[in-house]
Amino acid sequence: MSEASDLIEETDSLGVGSICDRALDIAPELDNVGRLARASALRTVALALEGHRSDIVRTADAETALGDGRLNAELTRTEYQCDLFAEVLEEGSYLEVTRDSARKTVMGDQPDLRRFLVPIGPVAVFGASNFPLAFSVPGGDTVAAIASGCPVVVKAHPSHQLTSQLCADIMAAALAKAGLPDSSLQLVSGQQAGLDLVQNPAIKAVAFTGSLVGGKALMAAIGSREDPIPFYGELSSINPIIVLPSAAKSRAVEIGRGLAASGTTSNGQLCTKPQTVYIPVGEDGDAVVEAMSSVFAAMNAQPYLNAGISMAFSNGVHRLQSDSRIHKLAPQPDAEMEWQRPTLLSVSCSDAPDAIMGEVFGPLQVAVRYTDLDDLVEGLRLIPGSLTATMHAELLDKEMVNTIVAALRTKVGRFIFNGYPTGVMVSWGQNHGGPWPATTSIHTSVGATSIRRFLRPITFQSAPEWILPTVLRDDYEIPKRIDGALVLPSSSSS
Amino acid sequence: MSEASDLIEETDSLGVGSICDRALDIAPELDNVGRLARASALRTVALALEGHRSDIVRTADAETALGDGRLNAELTRTEYQCDLFAEVLEEGSYLEVTRDSARKTVMGDQPDLRRFLVPIGPVAVFGASNFPLAFSVPGGDTVAAIASGCPVVVKAHPSHQLTSQLCADIMAAALAKAGLPDSSLQLVSGQQAGLDLVQNPAIKAVAFTGSLVGGKALMAAIGSREDPIPFYGELSSINPIIVLPSAAKSRAVEIGRGLAASGTTSNGQLCTKPQTVYIPVGEDGDAVVEAMSSVFAAMNAQPYLNAGISMAFSNGVHRLQSDSRIHKLAPQPDAEMEWQRPTLLSVSCSDAPDAIMGEVFGPLQVAVRYTDLDDLVEGLRLIPGSLTATMHAELLDKEMVNTIVAALRTKVGRFIFNGYPTGVMVSWGQNHGGPWPATTSIHTSVGATSIRRFLRPITFQSAPEWILPTVLRDDYEIPKRIDGALVLPSSSSS
Repeated sequence: MSEASDLIEETDSLGVGSICDRALDIAPELDNVGRLARASALRTVALALEGHRSDIVRTADAETALGDGRLNAELTRTEYQCDLFAEVLEEGSYLEVTRDSARKTVMGDQPDLRRFLVPIGPVAVFGASNFPLAFSVPGGDTVAAIASGCPVVVKAHPSHQLTSQLCADIMAAALAKAGLPDSSLQLVSGQQAGLDLVQNPAIKAVAFTGSLVGGKALMAAIGSREDPIPFYGELSSINPIIVLPSAAKSRAVEIGRGLAASGTTSNGQLCTKPQTVYIPVGEDGDAVVEAMSSVFAAMNAQPYLNAGISMAFSNGVHRLQSDSRIHKLAPQPDAEMEWQRPTLLSVSCSDAPDAIMGEVFGPLQVAVRYTDLDDLVEGLRLIPGSLTATMHAELLDKEMVNTIVAALRTKVGRFIFNGYPTGVMVSWGQNHGGPWPATTSIHTSVGATSIRRFLRPITFQSAPEWILPTVLRDDYEIPKRIDGALVLPSSSSS
Repeated sequence: MSEASDLIEETDSLGVGSICDRALDIAPELDNVGRLARASALRTVALALEGHRSDIVRTADAETALGDGRLNAELTRTEYQCDLFAEVLEEGSYLEVTRDSARKTVMGDQPDLRRFLVPIGPVAVFGASNFPLAFSVPGGDTVAAIASGCPVVVKAHPSHQLTSQLCADIMAAALAKAGLPDSSLQLVSGQQAGLDLVQNPAIKAVAFTGSLVGGKALMAAIGSREDPIPFYGELSSINPIIVLPSAAKSRAVEIGRGLAASGTTSNGQLCTKPQTVYIPVGEDGDAVVEAMSSVFAAMNAQPYLNAGISMAFSNGVHRLQSDSRIHKLAPQPDAEMEWQRPTLLSVSCSDAPDAIMGEVFGPLQVAVRYTDLDDLVEGLRLIPGSLTATMHAELLDKEMVNTIVAALRTKVGRFIFNGYPTGVMVSWGQNHGGPWPATTSIHTSVGATSIRRFLRPITFQSAPEWILPTVLRDDYEIPKRIDGALVLPSSSSS
């Protein structure tokens, strides 16, 4: 897996500098081509990626060992994402066009004010280890930033540099073919290049999906800039799952198997992996745990994305197991490759140490057994900010559900019912975010509204028609707010 | 002016801690009362402030010497602002309610996803020296945060502590009367209290209007937290004005007088004060400058908000004047109180030193004389991020206007035509923001959309009706996006 990184040259400081200069140079042109041209270019990118599907999947599999099935699905997802952002651009609400008419108020004369959103400027995107496509070069951050009109410089992840280069080449060619300026998407490589990138004055925002440690290092580098810029980091999440009594009673085996599958898919190397699972004590809960255990016990060690992740996983599991309050349910002690295998631990809710609240990236799940609602709610107080929280519940559990939602509402970005947090749909209503340490942002990093991260408002005051940008003119058809009221274009069906 | 601050006790660390604890305790209740109850409460606040108008204005004038006229207008503005945010809450779009229906996609099954925005948690607001009402206790940050459902803790500015206490008492009583939880609005006092406040874990966002130095000190304190939180700082702006040749030809005296008035109103102590004014060389430009000079020459020294601002102003003017490229047009050298009087300087555009691009808070204006468009555009390259840029232009100047808008588009938050930047209307389309050092944010701090600073998304996935928050249910009437399309409530006129 690692020889690939020798094939891509690290970008030196001068190289990063000239790449950032180019991004800044072409930023006005990428803005000026307009949203419809960018929408068309994103559809061209989707087609170009599809045209190179077998190349991309083969290259990514050689670097990540994630397998054909997963990588084909990931590529489909990135193409789908390009098309969704094309729709977002065509629909036009994302510009937040607003017009206040000149009028008298008790505050005095209100001038004609017209507001919309404009691109923030060149964006640095950091590819993630665990998604060589969907959270890397052709991933959500890149697509949202290009859609917004911001040039993108991606820092390739060392675990899949060839895939990054291949995708960057395909996308850059497609963007140019579609009439977008050269250098709308560029690539840098190397750890120092990443630090140079986020400190370059041309860069106006940074999007990162990765570890808490990596995120903190980038935040420190950004902190040394003269101008603070937004850092959109998606960092660390334990994604609690709560199985409520009636659900455990009616669906123990189904839930137990589902939990174990969600915790071990892609070898647990997903930001939405459910790590901490709250299960009632007693027979019904035991049945859930038994179903989980049998899945874990049957699994062999799977490939890790890189040696660092593999070692961190072993260390994390070892550290938890050294706590006498925590019991190991699977794999068998002294099983072959014990420390690399998918691992299921168990702990009593009232005894659970803080340590289980730290993300261990990889196939680890911890069953936390609670006695009653009070015990559960007390246990949930320890949960840090998280991307998701999931409940398995029946109507009989209603009061408990309401209590839990209230207890977790300040902590999570997405509540899931009778499902699993892994598998993040790219859509208008998605939220992939959450309070620290899940993310550093009040915006999602997946789905239509993630574009807002790369935009800022400008208002034109008392501008005559001949000065106004086209989208702010009276007769321009787009969803807009006029004197406080939302008005849809006349062509709209609503 | 300064004895007032002796009357308000500084809040010690324990005090700040218990105030923040209370804010965190009541946060769920302030959220749960719902947007319509908060709208009603804001209208009650507006009425309560109006009921104490004479008290408030008298107290504020004693502390700030801003005068009855200005302070009455400022109070009217804060009341107007309460009413506007009540409208924002009642209209409901700010919640960004979004629903994606369960369906099959090429990515697999899309679950039912429902997204809306929820309050971020307790917010710290720092009162500004120059607006004892509109940017202090009853100001925009407070009102937007309460509207969003976030409890507010205001750090009172030392220049108007009695006004702060009076307004906090009036508002807290009004909010309680309207049924909002006690401690929805609290006050702390003292510099250390401000630092304690932004480092308290209960605080989830900080809004600040003040100096670059003050903002950087707060950013450093926030940087020492374990969890990064958003810092919405509105810091420093020189608000360039560009007078184009045809405008100078047709309206020299009117523009010159208007410029000088905008630069000296409230003794120049406004964040939107136009400091740097680009005027063509030649007769028409000379006429503009003469009109400015005659206004400045006729003005005496006016009161400053506090001794620190007064001293910083003198030092700033002195530093600029010591540069031989800069000439003083008014006041006369050796005039009484020369260093405290409204001051007009002049410099050639091609010779302008960087120093004129730093904000000097107070009644200073610099006429920058340009020879042609190239000279002007080259000069504009020095301009840092700014809240506003203003053009005085006629149709004949069209090509120049387009070039200037393009040159400044990445630098400013609001373009004003044939007007002045001072006087910021509170409205739906307003933007009071801009790139660093103007602000630290991609959101406005004035107007309807400033509420977005205090909200974050939550998505409910596959939640049955009995779990969904009311606003996310199918039959709830509010502007919403359904499967990508904006849909207005049936009661809406559009």
